[in-house]
Amino acid sequence: MKDRIFNFNAGPAALPLSVLEEAQRDLLNYKGEGLSVMEMSHRSKTFDKIIKDTENLMKEIMGIPDGYKVLFFQGGATLQFAAVPMNLLPDGKSADYINTGTWSTKAIEEAKKLGKNVNVIASSEDKNFTYIPDGFKLTPDASYLHMTSNNTIYGTQWQKFPETGSVPLICDMSSDINCRKVDVSKFAMIYAGAQKNMGPSGVTIVIIREDLLERSPKNIPTMTSYKIIGGKDSLYNTPPTFGIYLIKLVLEWMKNSGGLSKVEAINRKKADLLYTAIDSTDFYKGTVRKEDRSLMNVTFRLPSEELEQKFIAGAIENNMIGLKGHRSVGGIRASIYNAVPVEAIEALVSYMKDFEKKNS
Amino acid sequence: MKDRIFNFNAGPAALPLSVLEEAQRDLLNYKGEGLSVMEMSHRSKTFDKIIKDTENLMKEIMGIPDGYKVLFFQGGATLQFAAVPMNLLPDGKSADYINTGTWSTKAIEEAKKLGKNVNVIASSEDKNFTYIPDGFKLTPDASYLHMTSNNTIYGTQWQKFPETGSVPLICDMSSDINCRKVDVSKFAMIYAGAQKNMGPSGVTIVIIREDLLERSPKNIPTMTSYKIIGGKDSLYNTPPTFGIYLIKLVLEWMKNSGGLSKVEAINRKKADLLYTAIDSTDFYKGTVRKEDRSLMNVTFRLPSEELEQKFIAGAIENNMIGLKGHRSVGGIRASIYNAVPVEAIEALVSYMKDFEKKNS
Repeated sequence: MKDRIFNFNAGPAALPLSVLEEAQRDLLNYKGEGLSVMEMSHRSKTFDKIIKDTENLMKEIMGIPDGYKVLFFQGGATLQFAAVPMNLLPDGKSADYINTGTWSTKAIEEAKKLGKNVNVIASSEDKNFTYIPDGFKLTPDASYLHMTSNNTIYGTQWQKFPETGSVPLICDMSSDINCRKVDVSKFAMIYAGAQKNMGPSGVTIVIIREDLLERSPKNIPTMTSYKIIGGKDSLYNTPPTFGIYLIKLVLEWMKNSGGLSKVEAINRKKADLLYTAIDSTDFYKGTVRKEDRSLMNVTFRLPSEELEQKFIAGAIENNMIGLKGHRSVGGIRASIYNAVPVEAIEALVSYMKDFEKKNS
Repeated sequence: MKDRIFNFNAGPAALPLSVLEEAQRDLLNYKGEGLSVMEMSHRSKTFDKIIKDTENLMKEIMGIPDGYKVLFFQGGATLQFAAVPMNLLPDGKSADYINTGTWSTKAIEEAKKLGKNVNVIASSEDKNFTYIPDGFKLTPDASYLHMTSNNTIYGTQWQKFPETGSVPLICDMSSDINCRKVDVSKFAMIYAGAQKNMGPSGVTIVIIREDLLERSPKNIPTMTSYKIIGGKDSLYNTPPTFGIYLIKLVLEWMKNSGGLSKVEAINRKKADLLYTAIDSTDFYKGTVRKEDRSLMNVTFRLPSEELEQKFIAGAIENNMIGLKGHRSVGGIRASIYNAVPVEAIEALVSYMKDFEKKNS
């Protein structure tokens, strides 16, 4: 049996070891109550404390100002691609979207499929999404601007968020939420599937300015309605209780690690280590514009696809998994989310140097 | 610290101890692969085997014939209340619904909210849902008949399913799926939130006849589309991986327990024990028509609300939780799902006798 490996999966992804250990310890008997969190009523006092603690920790760690709700949805970012226009884009109005990769594209397609008017005001598709576009113009009466802060597949990330004035800014942060400090007050809504930086798959975190809840029309499915789910504080029906509990443990781990500034500093150190290794040789080549590089998903190529396959196979032999680039772009991708320790990046860099020596 | 208690929760509910023990053992390192199931890619070979095994076990244990798909959705039964009419009830047509309680009512309301034509062809609302109606007539060209097989809140259950001829029968089995043998071929679709008999909350099992997938219109949210989710075998986006894994463990436990006939026999024994205790005295009174009594949710009253409160408090002192009736009906409810052992019912019956002796 192997020990724990170095996990560079793009999502679902590595979780902090101490989180898994605590979940394991309490799996049959949560805090002496004689049952698992999975077996508890979502209306029990114990679970009520878990979900409220999770919301409050989220507010504390992210610095979410008053006037926002932290909600838990199901259905991943994909359900939000539909929910955002269904709730917030009335017929006859239009919304602006920026296209920076596969997930932005899907958000745009979903809105269009539902018959909504969408303006794609900027895109980096012309260069295969290898950069973050700038210099775009908002449509003056747009219902909102939708963007994706980090592009898991391509390895790009917004370094500075656009100023949108009175146009509500809505951001899919699925793959970089809580990797760095963000001024939440600039956003009308932030959403994120939990399975990269926050917990297991099956929970979507929605941070939404409370005044937006009023915009939800009545004739949309209950499970997509910000007004209904928000009005019941995520307890309209049975939420994914165990997933929410794990998010709480991840947030506690972040807090005990020194909070978001400390986590961000470590993330910058990890990314620096890896990008420096890539840039220090011609053997490895980063795939995206340097100023748009992601802290979370580091993408690079080797001199040939054969070498890339050999690199990935050799990495697995050295207990490093998840390094294969997404099938739509190829190459190598190391996803180095919050829970991936510095030691994993050090091991990867050491393997890269060794691999280059043997294969160049 | 308490040991494991007797858990009569209505859902999320008791899970088999051996399932929790196996999940606990493998939580940090699944089968020696060096990571948790929660940390695995949903596109990995290992998870692909988990999800396929789960589907196949479901087919085997339930006796699902060829021509059906077993799918995993998010959003609970509530999302299905919307998805069923959005996928299967075209504008200009109508569907039949039978109203047997809170969840049927919600399914009806959700369809109406989405602007769909709904005929409520039978209801037991006249007697506060204390029986299962019969003698109803199907609308000849109804797109489907929707029903709820077991009514968690009221404690009624269909003993014999209606014959619907060419009208597709769609059944919400959230609170009694796999409690007894069912002829799946009579149903066009069965759906169930996992958190009562099948696993943790956050996964909805959808068993659907494949020809129905073709009915899904294009302009509905992706996460509600039977055609899209079915076409990708539940892997359109990241499914709730850990929940699906737990469903697999529950199904393996059922198989190792002797399969569905054996589980049904134990369930009948458990329900008999409890209903016999209720009927053997005037102190306790069952709340529903005897021939419609549920195998899963046993509802009864005591001579006064004061005694009911005392009964519930005393039960907790005796390590039995979850016995409070739903807030909409009051009284006592013992949910005795598959994972609740005979010993729990024996302990409850013994407590009931003792309580009556001391309080009558």
